[in-house]
Amino acid sequence: MQSPTPSPRIAVCPGTFDPVTYAHLDIIARAAQLFDRLIIGILNPPSRTQTTLFSLEERRQLLEESTHSLSNVVTARCETLVVDFARAHSATAIVKGLRAISDFEYELEMHQLNQKQAPDLESVFLMASADYSFMRSSGVKELATFGGNLDGMAPPCVISALGTKVQRRRT
Amino acid sequence: MQSPTPSPRIAVCPGTFDPVTYAHLDIIARAAQLFDRLIIGILNPPSRTQTTLFSLEERRQLLEESTHSLSNVVTARCETLVVDFARAHSATAIVKGLRAISDFEYELEMHQLNQKQAPDLESVFLMASADYSFMRSSGVKELATFGGNLDGMAPPCVISALGTKVQRRRT
Amino acid sequence: MQSPTPSPRIAVCPGTFDPVTYAHLDIIARAAQLFDRLIIGILNPPSRTQTTLFSLEERRQLLEESTHSLSNVVTARCETLVVDFARAHSATAIVKGLRAISDFEYELEMHQLNQKQAPDLESVFLMASADYSFMRSSGVKELATFGGNLDGMAPPCVISALGTKVQRRRT
Amino acid sequence: MQSPTPSPRIAVCPGTFDPVTYAHLDIIARAAQLFDRLIIGILNPPSRTQTTLFSLEERRQLLEESTHSLSNVVTARCETLVVDFARAHSATAIVKGLRAISDFEYELEMHQLNQKQAPDLESVFLMASADYSFMRSSGVKELATFGGNLDGMAPPCVISALGTKVQRRRT
Amino acid sequence: MQSPTPSPRIAVCPGTFDPVTYAHLDIIARAAQLFDRLIIGILNPPSRTQTTLFSLEERRQLLEESTHSLSNVVTARCETLVVDFARAHSATAIVKGLRAISDFEYELEMHQLNQKQAPDLESVFLMASADYSFMRSSGVKELATFGGNLDGMAPPCVISALGTKVQRRRT
Amino acid sequence: MQSPTPSPRIAVCPGTFDPVTYAHLDIIARAAQLFDRLIIGILNPPSRTQTTLFSLEERRQLLEESTHSLSNVVTARCETLVVDFARAHSATAIVKGLRAISDFEYELEMHQLNQKQAPDLESVFLMASADYSFMRSSGVKELATFGGNLDGMAPPCVISALGTKVQRRRT
Repeated sequence: MQSPTPSPRIAVCPGTFDPVTYAHLDIIARAAQLFDRLIIGILNPPSRTQTTLFSLEERRQLLEESTHSLSNVVTARCETLVVDFARAHSATAIVKGLRAISDFEYELEMHQLNQKQAPDLESVFLMASADYSFMRSSGVKELATFGGNLDGMAPPCVISALGTKVQRRRT
Repeated sequence: MQSPTPSPRIAVCPGTFDPVTYAHLDIIARAAQLFDRLIIGILNPPSRTQTTLFSLEERRQLLEESTHSLSNVVTARCETLVVDFARAHSATAIVKGLRAISDFEYELEMHQLNQKQAPDLESVFLMASADYSFMRSSGVKELATFGGNLDGMAPPCVISALGTKVQRRRT
Repeated sequence: MQSPTPSPRIAVCPGTFDPVTYAHLDIIARAAQLFDRLIIGILNPPSRTQTTLFSLEERRQLLEESTHSLSNVVTARCETLVVDFARAHSATAIVKGLRAISDFEYELEMHQLNQKQAPDLESVFLMASADYSFMRSSGVKELATFGGNLDGMAPPCVISALGTKVQRRRT
Repeated sequence: MQSPTPSPRIAVCPGTFDPVTYAHLDIIARAAQLFDRLIIGILNPPSRTQTTLFSLEERRQLLEESTHSLSNVVTARCETLVVDFARAHSATAIVKGLRAISDFEYELEMHQLNQKQAPDLESVFLMASADYSFMRSSGVKELATFGGNLDGMAPPCVISALGTKVQRRRT
Repeated sequence: MQSPTPSPRIAVCPGTFDPVTYAHLDIIARAAQLFDRLIIGILNPPSRTQTTLFSLEERRQLLEESTHSLSNVVTARCETLVVDFARAHSATAIVKGLRAISDFEYELEMHQLNQKQAPDLESVFLMASADYSFMRSSGVKELATFGGNLDGMAPPCVISALGTKVQRRRT
Repeated sequence: MQSPTPSPRIAVCPGTFDPVTYAHLDIIARAAQLFDRLIIGILNPPSRTQTTLFSLEERRQLLEESTHSLSNVVTARCETLVVDFARAHSATAIVKGLRAISDFEYELEMHQLNQKQAPDLESVFLMASADYSFMRSSGVKELATFGGNLDGMAPPCVISALGTKVQRRRT
C-alpha cells in the first residue's frame, strides 16, 4: 500500500521590492529551498503618502526576470491583507527577511497581529547574510540617483531599469 | 485638628489616538488608578506631512465614548506643547505607554527635553500588557481598510466609525 | 510512472531548556508543523561558569515527557557544535525562537557564524506568541524558588520537578 | 458631611543598590513625589554566581543614610518575590528606573510576568535624567577600584564606604 | 635633512542641519580637534517627500556663523553622494555623531554601504555628550513653533532665525 | 620661518583580546591609519567572576605577533582605568570598534563616564566591516573547543595557540 502523498508546503514572501536587490534575492532563494512552492507577493506601501519609484507591474516584472531560474518561485500582486493573500494561495507560511533591530520590532508586531487574524498561518524569518545586511532598496535608489556604483547590489535588469528611471526623472 | 486636605494628583495622557484602541484604553484605565484625575490630551501629529484618518474632534468623541465608565478621566484637545497643556490643567505628571524599543528611545528623548522645559513635571511610563503589545492604530487602520477582523482590538464605537470612514474613502 | 519520493525535511531545534517552558513548547509545536521531523538538541551552556539547575539528562526527560504528543519530534543530547549536530541528523535547517532584541542580535551573529561553517544549512526563526514573550526559564526558576504561581508557564511535570529541586536546595 | 479619607498611595522601589548612586537617588526622590509612601526594597542578585560588594545590611544602611531627608521614604530588605514584598507593604505600585534599551527589555518582561502574578499591582517607570543616564553601580565600583574620580556620582557616605571596602580588598 | 611634511588629515561631516543645534556643534568642535581640517557638508534630505524648514543656503549661513570661531572648519553644500563629496575635498574620513540606537543602525548600514563604494574612506563616529543626547533638530523646531524655551539648545543666531521663520509661517 | 612641528596624534585602543581575531585586527589597522601612533591596551575583564582563556601576557604576545606589520602600533598591558592609561601614553583619543546594539549602549555609557573623568580625551568609534560583524572572541573559542573551522577568523598564530590551549584543557 502506498502512503498518501503529503500536501505540498507552500509559502508566500510579501514585500514592496522597489526595486528587488540581491538582499531580497538571497532571502528568496533560501526560502525556495525550504518550501515546495514560494509565491512572492508584491505590495504597495501601506501609507498613501509613500510612493514607489517603480509601478507595481514594473516591480513584478523585475522580480519575475530576477527569479526565473528558481523553478518553484512565482510572483503575484498582493492587494489584500497578507494573511488573505496567503490563504488564497493555500500557503501555510509567510516568509520574511530580517536585517536589523527595526525590522525585528516591526515584524514581531506584524507576526502577533497576523497570529490573531490567522492562527493557522506560520510566520518564518530568515536572517540576512553578512554580505547583504547593509543593503536596502532605498540605499540602492539613492546610489542610482547620484551615479554611485551598484555592482553586486542588484541584478543587471534592475540596474538597467534604475538607470532609465533615474535619467527620465532628471530630464 | 484636621490635617489639610492634600492636593489631588492630576496627570495628563497625551496622544494622537487615530483612532483609540484597546491598547490605549488599557494604559488609560491603569493610569486612572494611579492618579485622582486623568486628562487625555488629543494631539495632531507634529509633522505637516502626516495626516490623520479621523479629525481631532472625531478622535476626541471616540475617546469620550470609550472612557465614559472611567469617572476620573476627561478628554481635551491639546494644541500647545504637552508641558504647557499639563500646566494649564494643574497636572504634576505626564503618563505615557511604552510598547517597543522605538517607543522607548523616542520617549527617553522627549522626557529629557521636557525635563529641561518643566523640571517640576514628572513623566510616568506604563508598559503595554502582553495582550496589547502588538496593537498599533496604524495596524488597526490597515486591517479596517482591507476588511480584516478587528475583534478585541478596539471598542465597538471605534470599529463602527472605522467601517464608515473606510467605506467613504473607497466610494 | 511515479515521481521519486522527496527526501523528508528535517530540522534541529537547539537549546538549554533548563527547564522547558510553554514558551519553548509553543515554538517546538509550531516548528513541528513546518518540518517532517524535528530533533530537539539539548545543550549545556557554553561558558564553564554558568551552571544549570537540571542535569542534561533531567532536561531531556522533561522535554521528552512534554513533547510525547508530537509524533514527529524527538530529543537528543547535543554535545558538539550545532552545525555538526544538524549534519549528524541529516537536518537541513536549524529552528530557533525569537523573543527580544537581545535574542535577535545574538541569533543574527550565530546565523552568520553558522553560515560560514555550513553554508548549506538554513537557520529558520519563529517569533514568540504574545502570550509567551515574557516567559524565560530564568524567570520561571526564580518564581519557583520564591513560591510564585507557575500556572500556565510550564507543563505539570516541569512544575513538579521544579518543586522537588527547589525543596532539595533549601533543605 | 466629610468625604472618607482616601487610602494612601504606597509604592515599592526594588533594587540591588550595590551601592546606591545619585542615579538611584534621582529616581527615588522623583518617585517619592508621586506616592504618599515609598518603600525601597533591597534585593540580593537573583543568580547565585553573582555576588555583591556590600552586604545586604550595608547596602540598606547606605540607602537609609542617603534618603533620610525624604520623609516618606523607608528602606527594607526584600527577600521574597517583589510582588509579595509589595503586597506585604500594602503597595499598589512598583516603581523602577529606566536608563537603556537593555533595561527596557528586561523590565518589559518583568512587568508582563508580574502582571500574571499580581494583576492588581501596577508597574510604574521613570526615565533617567540626562545627567545620570550613564551611571551604573558597576561603573562606580570599577572607578573606585582604580582610584577614579567619583565626584557627583554618589553621596559622601557611599564614596567613603567604597574607599574602605576597596582598600580592605587590596590589602 | 628634513622629514617630509605629512599630508594634512581632512574629514567631512555631513548632515541636514535644519537648523544646527548645540548637539551638532558639540560633535563639530570635537571632530575639529581630531583632524587638521573639517568640511561640514550640508545635505538636502534624501526623500522628495521630506522638506526642510530652512533652505540649504540658510542652513549653510547659520552653520557658518555658528562655527566661525573654529579656524579649521569650513562649510559647503553637498549635492552628491557623501563619498564623492569627501573625495572632492581630499578627505580621508567621514565624521558622524551617534545619539541613539536608531542612529546606530542607520549609520552601520551607511558605513557598510560606503565601505563598498570607497574602501579607502574611513567612517569615524563620536558619541553625543550626556547634555545633548536628547536634542534633535525636529524637537527644537517643535519647541519654536509652540513658543517653548530654547535656551541652551542652539546658538543665538539660530534661535533668532527660528523665531522669524515660525512667525512668518503663522501670519 | 618654519611652522612648529605639530604634536603627533596618539590614540589607545583598549580591549580584552581573548584572543585577538580578524575583527579586532580590522579595527586596529583602520585606527592605525587615523592616528600617528596607536597603543593597544590589553585589559583583564572587570569582573572577578569572569576568567580569560589566555593569560594577559599570552594575549599581548598574540597581538604583538599579529600586528608586527603595522609600524605605528604597539601593545601594552592596561592595568589601570583606560583614561589613566591614555594619559600615561600622552594619547588624545580612545578608539573602539562597534558591532552591535549591545556594544553601542555599553560604549555610550562608557563614553559619557569617561567624559566626566577626562573631558579632554576623545572617544572615537569605528564600525565593524560587514565581513566581521558576526565575529566575537567567544564564538571563536567555542568553535575551537568543538573543532569547528576557524579559517578567516583569526591569524595563524592565534589558531595555533587556540589548538594547543584547547587540547591541554581536554587532557
